[in-house]
Amino acid sequence: MNGSRSNKDKKQAIFDISKEENFPDWYGEICKVAELADIRYGVKGFTPFLPWSVMSMNLMFAYLEDAFQSRDHLPMLFPTVIPESNLIKEANHVEGFTPQVFWIKEIGDGEKLEEPLALRPTSETAIYPMYSLWLRSWRDLPFKLYQRCSVFRSEIKSTRPFLRGREFLWIESHNVFATHEEALAQVQEDIEITKEVVTEHFGIPVMVFRRTQWDKFPGGFNTYAADTLMPDGKVIQLPSTHDLGDNFAKAFDVTYLNENNETVNAWQTCYGPAISRIYGAMISIHGDDKGLRIPFKIAPYQVVIVPIYKEQTEKEVLDYCNDIVKTLRKAGIRVHLDKREQTPGWKYNYWEMKGVPIRVEAGPRDIKEKKVVLMRRDTMKREPIELSALKKTINTLGEEIDANLRAIAESKFEGLIVDADSMGTIEDALEKGKIARIPFCTTEMDGLPCDEAIKEKTGGEVRGTRSDVEDVATGVCVNCGKVATEIVYVARSY
Amino acid sequence: MNGSRSNKDKKQAIFDISKEENFPDWYGEICKVAELADIRYGVKGFTPFLPWSVMSMNLMFAYLEDAFQSRDHLPMLFPTVIPESNLIKEANHVEGFTPQVFWIKEIGDGEKLEEPLALRPTSETAIYPMYSLWLRSWRDLPFKLYQRCSVFRSEIKSTRPFLRGREFLWIESHNVFATHEEALAQVQEDIEITKEVVTEHFGIPVMVFRRTQWDKFPGGFNTYAADTLMPDGKVIQLPSTHDLGDNFAKAFDVTYLNENNETVNAWQTCYGPAISRIYGAMISIHGDDKGLRIPFKIAPYQVVIVPIYKEQTEKEVLDYCNDIVKTLRKAGIRVHLDKREQTPGWKYNYWEMKGVPIRVEAGPRDIKEKKVVLMRRDTMKREPIELSALKKTINTLGEEIDANLRAIAESKFEGLIVDADSMGTIEDALEKGKIARIPFCTTEMDGLPCDEAIKEKTGGEVRGTRSDVEDVATGVCVNCGKVATEIVYVARSY
Repeated sequence: MNGSRSNKDKKQAIFDISKEENFPDWYGEICKVAELADIRYGVKGFTPFLPWSVMSMNLMFAYLEDAFQSRDHLPMLFPTVIPESNLIKEANHVEGFTPQVFWIKEIGDGEKLEEPLALRPTSETAIYPMYSLWLRSWRDLPFKLYQRCSVFRSEIKSTRPFLRGREFLWIESHNVFATHEEALAQVQEDIEITKEVVTEHFGIPVMVFRRTQWDKFPGGFNTYAADTLMPDGKVIQLPSTHDLGDNFAKAFDVTYLNENNETVNAWQTCYGPAISRIYGAMISIHGDDKGLRIPFKIAPYQVVIVPIYKEQTEKEVLDYCNDIVKTLRKAGIRVHLDKREQTPGWKYNYWEMKGVPIRVEAGPRDIKEKKVVLMRRDTMKREPIELSALKKTINTLGEEIDANLRAIAESKFEGLIVDADSMGTIEDALEKGKIARIPFCTTEMDGLPCDEAIKEKTGGEVRGTRSDVEDVATGVCVNCGKVATEIVYVARSY
Repeated sequence: MNGSRSNKDKKQAIFDISKEENFPDWYGEICKVAELADIRYGVKGFTPFLPWSVMSMNLMFAYLEDAFQSRDHLPMLFPTVIPESNLIKEANHVEGFTPQVFWIKEIGDGEKLEEPLALRPTSETAIYPMYSLWLRSWRDLPFKLYQRCSVFRSEIKSTRPFLRGREFLWIESHNVFATHEEALAQVQEDIEITKEVVTEHFGIPVMVFRRTQWDKFPGGFNTYAADTLMPDGKVIQLPSTHDLGDNFAKAFDVTYLNENNETVNAWQTCYGPAISRIYGAMISIHGDDKGLRIPFKIAPYQVVIVPIYKEQTEKEVLDYCNDIVKTLRKAGIRVHLDKREQTPGWKYNYWEMKGVPIRVEAGPRDIKEKKVVLMRRDTMKREPIELSALKKTINTLGEEIDANLRAIAESKFEGLIVDADSMGTIEDALEKGKIARIPFCTTEMDGLPCDEAIKEKTGGEVRGTRSDVEDVATGVCVNCGKVATEIVYVARSY
C-alpha cells in the first residue's frame, strides 16, 4: 500500500558500508547508488555526472563565483583548445604539462589541421598571449579575471569519479599586477577564498602548505596548496594558488608602460579550485556508513517531505504537504515532496542514503496536531515541531547541521600531526593514519633526493612547509643528516 | 580635471556606426570596442569571450536553467569527448555531423589512443548509450535531463564572434518518453521555453518553423526551429527542438519494459538553445548607432553611477554615490560606481556604448536637492528624480526599458512577410529585406530540388512551414508547378 508507514521493504534502500574500514568500496558504491556518476562511459577517466552531484556542484560554483566577484574578479571564457605554438612557449611549463595533453590534429574525414591544438590542461598559455595584447599601461592594472570550465589531463594514476579524472571541472583565476608584492597579496587572498568557501561554506578543514620547488606549478615561483584529510588517512590537494613571478610575463611578453614610461614585466598569479575534486572530498569527509551527508548550504534538496497516508487520507495529507512545499519554497528553501509509490520506510532510507539534511514526515495525526516530524540526517534525531515554527526551525537547523558536519571533520585533524625525526618514526606515524612533522634539509631543488628516499622508505611524501602556522627549524634532515633549514610535513596522498 | 562635467574629451569614447546601413562593420566594431570578444586568438572560429559578454551570458543561462528546472528538467554533465564507435552508430546522424568533427587520436608525446575520441558536436551519441543502461521500466520514465556545456563544430562558413563559432555555448536537453504523443508535447514545451526566455526575457521576437525533411536534425523525425531577423534582413536560427521519434532508440537500444512486460523502444526529443548565438542576435537586434542597448534583465550592470565633482566636492559626492550603491545593491540591483579618472562626459559615452540601461548622475547640486539625474539608454531621455524614489523608479524603468526594446524589435516583424508566387516576386521581396511566403510542392525529400532552384535564383532558402500560425496551401509550386501541398517561407539566412 503506497504511502503507509510500513517497514516491509525498508531494507531495499539501506546503504551500510563502513566508511572508515573500507573507504574505496564505500566511495565506489555511494557514487553508484546515490546516482552521482556512472563509470560505464567507456573512456578511461571520463565520467558522466548525474543530477544529484551536478546540482550540488552548481551550488558550489555559485559560492566560489560570489567569493571572486565580491573581491572584484570578473568572469571571462577562453576557448577549450590551445595552439601548439602557445603551449610550448614557457619551457618548464611545457615540460610539466605536455605529457598529459590530448592533441587534436585532424578534422572530419582526415583533413589535417595547420597547427595541432591541445585540449587545455590549464589555460596560462591560452590566456597570457591575449593579456599581452590587452595590457598597455600601469593604468590597466590589475587584471583580475577568472573562468569556469573543464580541463583535460591524461592522468597516469588510476582515476576515480570526481577525485581524479581526465576531464575535471574548475575555476581558474588569472591575475596580473604591477608589483610582486601585489601578486603575493593576491596569493593570500586566494588562500582566504579557499578558507571561506571550502572550509566555512562546505565544512572541509584544510592545512595550507608552500610546496617544495620540485612539487610546484611548472613555470611558477611558488605554489601554495590547501590539503585536507580523506577517510583512508591520505591527504588530498584541494585548491592551490601560484605565485608565477615574472616567468610567464617574460615568456608571453606580458609587459606594460610604467609611470616613468618604461616597458617592464608584469607580475602574475593563478589559482585553480577544482569543484569536481572538492565535491569528491566533500562527500568523502561528511558521509557516514549510511551514505551521504550533504551540508545544508549545498544540498540539491535541503528538505525532503515524506507523506504518510492510507487510501482514505491521501488527499488530506498531500494537500497538507503541498502547502508546506509552497511555504518553504517561498522562503527560498530547496524542498522536494516525494510522491512516489514506495512506502515511507523505503523513502526514509533512500533519502538518508542520498544525504538530504532534513526530512519532514507528515501524516493524519500530525495534521490534527498542526505539527510535523523533523529528522536531521547528521545526528539522525527525530522530533515533532509545530507547523507554524517550521520555516524558522529549518533555517536554524540547517545552520546547526553545517556547523556539526564541520566540527566532525575538524575533529579528525586533532592529534593528526606527529613529530618524527627518523624514517622509522615517520613510517609509524603514517601507518597510524597520521601526518609526520620532520626536520628537513631544504625545499630548494637540492632536497629532492631526500624526498625520494622518504617516499621509497615510508610511502609518504613531503607536502611542503606550512604557510598558515609558524614552524622553527631544529635538528637535522631525517635522510641526509644535514642541518635542517625547514620543518616539512610528510603524508600519504592522493 | 577628473570628475568634473567637461566635454573636452567626450569624443574619445563616441561610437557612431549606422547599424542598418553597415551591419557587418557595426557588429565587428562593437564586439571590439565594447570588449565582448577578441578575434585575435589565432585559431579560426575560436574566440575568447570577455567579461562584458560573459556576465550577460551567465544571466541568460540562469533564465534558461530556471525555465528548465521549473518544468522538472534536471542538470547533468557528460564528458566533452565521445568515442568514435558511439558517434557512428546512427547512420544519418553520423553523415550529418562527422565532417565537422574535431578528432583526438594522440596523447602527450605521440602516444596513440586505442580509440579515437571526437569533441562533442552535440551529445546524443554520448548520452543515449548511458540512457540505454539507465532505462529499465516504464516506471523510470520520463527522463528529462539537460546539460550546460561547449560544443565543437568545424564550420565551413565564415565564423563571427557569438553568431557562428567553432566552439559555442549551449544547453542541450535530452528527454525520453513512453509514447510519441508525450515526446511531441515536449517539443511544444520546448517552443514555450524558447518564447518565455528568448522573447519575454531577452526581448527577441521569433517565428517558429517546422523545417523541411532535408533541413532537419540528422537522424530525427522533425525539427522545429525559432528564427529571428537580423538588422541586415537575414534570418538566423535560434533554438531548435527535435522530435527524434524512435530512431535513436533503435540505434542505441533505448528500450524499456512496458506495463505488459514487453521490451519496447522509447521516444525521444532533444533541444539545444545556444546561448552564445542568442547573445550575438540579442546585441544585434537591440543595439543602435551609439552602441549596445542591453535589456535590464540581462545587463551585467543595470545601473552605472557617474559622480560629478571638483576637487573640493569629491568626498561629499563620492559618499553620496556610495550610499546609493549600498541601497541599490541591497535591493538586488546590479550597480557600478565609475570612479575612474576620466571626465563625466567621457564616461557617459563609454557606458552608452556598453549599453548599460540606466545611468545615474550625481553632483553637488543634486545632493543639495536630495535628487539624482537618471538617463535611460533606450530612449536617451534624462530626468531628475527624488533620491527617496530611486529604488522604485529604477525597477519600474527597468521593466519599461525591456518592454520598449522588445516592442522596437517586434516592430521590425510588421509587414515583414510578403506573399510571392514566382521567382521574380521572391527575389523582389528578399531584396527589400522581406520574407517571402510561397506555395510549395512538398517539404518531404522530393521538394529538395525546388529549394535548390529557389536558392540559386533568389539567394533565399526555404525555412519550412510555420508551426505557430495556420497556413492553407493553395496554388502551385513556384518552381516545379505541381499542386502546392504546403505554404513555406523563403528568407536569406545566416
